[in-house]
Amino acid sequence: MDFLQSNLIYFIPALGIVGLIVMAIKSAWVSKQDAGDAKMTELAGYIADGAMAFLKAEWKVLSIFVVFAAALLAYSGTIHEVNGKAIHSSWIISISFIIGAVFSATAGYIGMKVATKANVRTTQAARTSLKQALKVSFTGGTVMGLGVAGLAIFGLGGLFIVFLKIFNVVDVDSNEMRTAIEVLTGFSLGAESIALFARVGGGIYTKAADVGADLVGKVEAGIPEDDVRNPATIADNVGDNVGDVAGMGADLFGSYVATILATMVLGQEINVQDNFGGMSPILLPMVICGLGIIFSIIGTWFVTIKDDKSNVQTALNLGNWASMAITVVASYFIVMYMLPDGIISLRGVEFTKMGVFGAILVGTVVGAVMSVVTEYYTAMGKAPVMSIIQQSSTGHATNIIGGLSVGMKSTVIPILTLAAGIMGSYYCAGLYGVAIAAAGMMATTAMQLAIDAFGPIADNAGGIAEMSQLPPEVRERTDNLDAVGNTTAATGKGFAIASAALTSLALFAAFVGIAGIDAIDIYKANVLAGLFVGAMIPFIFSALCIQAVGKAAMDMVQEVRRQFREIPGIMEYKAKPEYEKCVAISTKASIREMMMPGAIALITPIIVGFIFGPEVLGGLLAGVTVSGVLMGIFQSNAGGAWDNAKKSFEKGVMINGEMFYKKSEPHKASVTGDTVGDPFKDTSGPSMNILIKLMSIVSLVIAPYISVGNAESNEMNCHAQTEMCVGMDSVDMGNCDLAKCMSMTPEACAAYCDSMKCTPEQKAACVKMMEAHKGIDMSECSGSSEACKDKANCKDKASCSGKTEACKSTCEKK
Amino acid sequence: MDFLQSNLIYFIPALGIVGLIVMAIKSAWVSKQDAGDAKMTELAGYIADGAMAFLKAEWKVLSIFVVFAAALLAYSGTIHEVNGKAIHSSWIISISFIIGAVFSATAGYIGMKVATKANVRTTQAARTSLKQALKVSFTGGTVMGLGVAGLAIFGLGGLFIVFLKIFNVVDVDSNEMRTAIEVLTGFSLGAESIALFARVGGGIYTKAADVGADLVGKVEAGIPEDDVRNPATIADNVGDNVGDVAGMGADLFGSYVATILATMVLGQEINVQDNFGGMSPILLPMVICGLGIIFSIIGTWFVTIKDDKSNVQTALNLGNWASMAITVVASYFIVMYMLPDGIISLRGVEFTKMGVFGAILVGTVVGAVMSVVTEYYTAMGKAPVMSIIQQSSTGHATNIIGGLSVGMKSTVIPILTLAAGIMGSYYCAGLYGVAIAAAGMMATTAMQLAIDAFGPIADNAGGIAEMSQLPPEVRERTDNLDAVGNTTAATGKGFAIASAALTSLALFAAFVGIAGIDAIDIYKANVLAGLFVGAMIPFIFSALCIQAVGKAAMDMVQEVRRQFREIPGIMEYKAKPEYEKCVAISTKASIREMMMPGAIALITPIIVGFIFGPEVLGGLLAGVTVSGVLMGIFQSNAGGAWDNAKKSFEKGVMINGEMFYKKSEPHKASVTGDTVGDPFKDTSGPSMNILIKLMSIVSLVIAPYISVGNAESNEMNCHAQTEMCVGMDSVDMGNCDLAKCMSMTPEACAAYCDSMKCTPEQKAACVKMMEAHKGIDMSECSGSSEACKDKANCKDKASCSGKTEACKSTCEKK
Repeated sequence: MDFLQSNLIYFIPALGIVGLIVMAIKSAWVSKQDAGDAKMTELAGYIADGAMAFLKAEWKVLSIFVVFAAALLAYSGTIHEVNGKAIHSSWIISISFIIGAVFSATAGYIGMKVATKANVRTTQAARTSLKQALKVSFTGGTVMGLGVAGLAIFGLGGLFIVFLKIFNVVDVDSNEMRTAIEVLTGFSLGAESIALFARVGGGIYTKAADVGADLVGKVEAGIPEDDVRNPATIADNVGDNVGDVAGMGADLFGSYVATILATMVLGQEINVQDNFGGMSPILLPMVICGLGIIFSIIGTWFVTIKDDKSNVQTALNLGNWASMAITVVASYFIVMYMLPDGIISLRGVEFTKMGVFGAILVGTVVGAVMSVVTEYYTAMGKAPVMSIIQQSSTGHATNIIGGLSVGMKSTVIPILTLAAGIMGSYYCAGLYGVAIAAAGMMATTAMQLAIDAFGPIADNAGGIAEMSQLPPEVRERTDNLDAVGNTTAATGKGFAIASAALTSLALFAAFVGIAGIDAIDIYKANVLAGLFVGAMIPFIFSALCIQAVGKAAMDMVQEVRRQFREIPGIMEYKAKPEYEKCVAISTKASIREMMMPGAIALITPIIVGFIFGPEVLGGLLAGVTVSGVLMGIFQSNAGGAWDNAKKSFEKGVMINGEMFYKKSEPHKASVTGDTVGDPFKDTSGPSMNILIKLMSIVSLVIAPYISVGNAESNEMNCHAQTEMCVGMDSVDMGNCDLAKCMSMTPEACAAYCDSMKCTPEQKAACVKMMEAHKGIDMSECSGSSEACKDKANCKDKASCSGKTEACKSTCEKK
Repeated sequence: MDFLQSNLIYFIPALGIVGLIVMAIKSAWVSKQDAGDAKMTELAGYIADGAMAFLKAEWKVLSIFVVFAAALLAYSGTIHEVNGKAIHSSWIISISFIIGAVFSATAGYIGMKVATKANVRTTQAARTSLKQALKVSFTGGTVMGLGVAGLAIFGLGGLFIVFLKIFNVVDVDSNEMRTAIEVLTGFSLGAESIALFARVGGGIYTKAADVGADLVGKVEAGIPEDDVRNPATIADNVGDNVGDVAGMGADLFGSYVATILATMVLGQEINVQDNFGGMSPILLPMVICGLGIIFSIIGTWFVTIKDDKSNVQTALNLGNWASMAITVVASYFIVMYMLPDGIISLRGVEFTKMGVFGAILVGTVVGAVMSVVTEYYTAMGKAPVMSIIQQSSTGHATNIIGGLSVGMKSTVIPILTLAAGIMGSYYCAGLYGVAIAAAGMMATTAMQLAIDAFGPIADNAGGIAEMSQLPPEVRERTDNLDAVGNTTAATGKGFAIASAALTSLALFAAFVGIAGIDAIDIYKANVLAGLFVGAMIPFIFSALCIQAVGKAAMDMVQEVRRQFREIPGIMEYKAKPEYEKCVAISTKASIREMMMPGAIALITPIIVGFIFGPEVLGGLLAGVTVSGVLMGIFQSNAGGAWDNAKKSFEKGVMINGEMFYKKSEPHKASVTGDTVGDPFKDTSGPSMNILIKLMSIVSLVIAPYISVGNAESNEMNCHAQTEMCVGMDSVDMGNCDLAKCMSMTPEACAAYCDSMKCTPEQKAACVKMMEAHKGIDMSECSGSSEACKDKANCKDKASCSGKTEACKSTCEKK
């Protein structure tokens, strides 16, 4: 055990490397699979090229941003003092930031690369059996999941070791350690910034292409989805990869890193005597999440089916629950092994290691409830989706009203669960509990992501089957996978928003500590104003996202209409549409439109923090978090419910005793809902996660620079002084001026008293008084006993009025 | 001046009576106008009967609620102590509550009564000229406005005088005064409860009828709006009266009362030496709003046009701005006359009377900006509505996306304005400034309401014209008025939400004071949980409202379809539809569906307050307010914009160089948006105002019962004790136990010291010490000087760890 104890820190990046090795093996396996005939590979090639083109365009823009931001960070690292307070930062934060950005981009790249290979191979596999198709698509998803988690753990764990060395950290409770963790924050900032742009840009891309392709193709030209004649169809399939795969990969990479980091920041504040040099609270989240990779790999073994009649959803659920259950059980032993016995304390809240395990359990339960509730509100056959179907019978408008109301209603249980989770995990282990709850929830990210990423791969596989005009049973098999993918996408979003909420709270707590405030009092007018402005940001952010989709989709519609009009023979399969033009429209629009929302998320906290100070910024963050979580749940669930209401028509639905199928009037109404829901569920809704986390991280990074003196301790001093004045007044100290004595040694004070001709009693009283009040500022101590008592009475500003001048002046200083 | 000074309080209800007298005169004038031919009076009769039937059904349910709630309040008034703290309430609060409820219902009744008379008379007047039609409809609106404002001022002012007598109030800063104002809160609670049910019930009624009538009539049967053959058309017209008139009347009555009351509660906390026995801060809001009635009457004189070509909007704007300008100017003189010179202070914030005037100015500017911005986002021809029109060209879905994004974007400037307004008015005059800003904004409620209520009257007039098959120029004139009414309805909503936000903040501040807390710290886990739950409530509330409309509209659709099917000859005008069945459906549905949202608003604060205490309830209120304001602005503006996008097609719109008119595909898409927007803008959106205010008032009423010991002063005591211990330890008091002395008179203490055989010096020290520390709890003062110092070092819980046991125990008690 001794070896493990002293080298535990090195096991962490090693766990990441294990994940990456398994990923490489699985990736090689996917590449080895049969990619099908020439037509299939040609189409898959278009998709892969389109996706790559987007990533390149995105990276070009983002690299400018990264260089610029890194320069700013490097500059900030050279500031070592603000308003007389020391700041423990370093220019190395910029390196950390760049590595975070590159890792995040790499995570997205890996996912997209394998997805664009797995898609066509899934199609080919679907020609033989559902079992094989699931295997290929899910393995593709697993590559993505392991890549993200492996890179994150390797990056965080590795950099942490490097920074401990660079900054010569010997003690946990030292400025060097603070610097190391502060610099590590840069990694998270880099990851989350890229995530925001990738999610928003990818989200706009995929939905612009999807909506555009559907509006002209399905509605106007009457050709099926994914028809090879539709010029926007390649862009649509590219969108699945850049939005649902690369975007989501970067998103979850950011979440994962932010969650672990927030727990580390809070862990650093905890003083414990353990076998890891006091580092156990810092290392714990990394160890749990690192082992979570291994448990996720174990979970993937459960994801397999017997034959075409097996239930794919059940297989995925089994794998998911298995990895979560193993993680929870293992967490118990990890916590018991790592944390010391006895009382652990953080910011005045005391807890035990059992409490820490309790918090992890709470986090897992919250995550599970969120997933189940999300599934209920968005799954086919359940009451909410049925109500939307019912309301489709009276037209487009009632369908929309139904979906909006389902989305709004779906916020209730998740929010109550989250509120209970916050209180519960805090009760278990204070703020550290809130953070570790999120970390526990995120431990199986590799598995979550495998399940999530499998969906768009199956979706793409179906697209390729349709475009290659393969036999219907192939499409049937991929459709089966795709339908399951829709549900897993929805539950994944529920999980993501829950973890984001808890992570934001942990970041929020970390921010409060570093900013030197100890309350965010919304009773103060300016903090409340901050809360209002913060709560508004998710609205404008969402508006910009869905508006961008609307605008880009209209451009797409015009282009597709133009091609149908100007290229003769498209409809007869004689001429090939200009796919690349549609790809270019989506690429250009998404890059252009992601700027503004990204800028809002990055710049708002900086402006508010520097102008109005940390407490108002705290109000802003609370507003963003609360409103962002609500808007995220509302939009994701409304979109998911609309989608499945539309899908229900494919098998036929009964409304008031009558059966309705595709192309019926109610189905048309349901298509409207689905189209409205597209940007909700794939662009703005999931972006809310990143928005709230990114704003918290930016605030955390700037916190030292906007930090203020501790307000409570000032107030304390005020009371202490007052009491002391009163006390002083009732003791005979002769000519001894206590204020002068305070800065002396007891001996010097005694000598001074002698020089002032005090009696021995007076001298003794003076020295005793001076020793008793060491460290208290005496500047206020003047005036009569009356004035002093007044000050003592003056408990707060409100009771000041009508009191004497001395009291008022004391109060005003508070 | 002397007479005015000593009798100012009696002038307040007198101003209310003046308003009511002018109302009676105008009402009589409306009744005297020609009601047109037999067919018109028959139709108007149906509408009036339907409206009356709804009000009766609603009152029946609400009277049960009122009796029940009044009993609870009466019981609560008999509790005079909770946890050892005295409560200054009285069972009379139940009477006050009942009067508030009755007045609110009366305000709605007056408005509806005159509206159902003015509608047909406006139709008749429109046969001659636009000028005359405007005069009749606007006079109808004025009756409503004056009725609401007059009743409110008369009720508040009159009851205040009565309560001052009943409770024998002689001093402003006395428990009697607190009781009088606490009891007056009941009036506001009664008013606001009825307002909630009236607004929600009326909102559901009107939109269920509207949507139902449109879906079958316009869309399926292809007959025009308001066609006499449509069985739901009478219900639709009734809806305008019960929702837009009675509902809005009760709503603004509640707002108006709540705003004034909140300012009074805060004013009571201010100690000033003035010519009104220190009551000037309490009386000021009533005087300003009372005189606002007179200024509103003056404003109505400006609302007149020359001929059919004159601009109605300009006339209304002139009247509106005139009354606002007069109010601001008059406020200056009122403030200067009433408030004393020198520093005024509330809860530690100091300001002058100039600051109070500044706050009123800020409030008026905020209200004006909100109106202008709302108009921009919802008016025809402006960019936002044009963008929706543009997006209608690609179908239903893009129209919806466009409207949603306009609604979300429209929150930005209002929220920034509001945030600036909060900070500005606070800067001017502290929390009193925030409250008086709202009161200043609400002073011209009579005028606002006249402008608002004129819209539905004109709408009804148009309906009657259509149903009576009058010549097209009549409908043209009423359409002109109706279009203006749509804009004024939107701007009125902007104004209402701004005033509600400020009022809620003032109520929030009042709540904090009475609940005995002095911070609402969202950094605490449970308060943050409260914030989350609070922010969720507007979502579920909105969901319930729009779902209710959807459900009721579907019932309506089924009934209309049934009548078309089963009653032969309807289409040929040979058989009369069964209007009353449709009226009954709307009535029943709205009464049934208003229960749940109402219950949520009323019960949530009670549950949260009693279980989790005032600070968590404060978090909940902040969440409701912030999210409610955002959802209110979002929904109202999205609805308004969709409505006017649809209306734009009537005159034809150009999209990409092509003209589109009614019945074109883009127009059909715009109808979908309008239908979705209906419940947004007329049911859930405007209910947000009342929701946030009602929850604040409920909290204010229960505040004394959930009040906690003042946290800060406890902490203070802790510091004081510690200091005292240390001080005590350094003074020689012999055998004198200071803790015992603390409860004695100085003489008794001296005697006690003698009995303990103290020296004269020890005795003197003990008495001096005891006198100096009067009022400080001594229970903690034991132990050595070392332990005491430890306690002194123990500034907060965080610094506790590692300290001695004594320190820890002190900290834990904090």
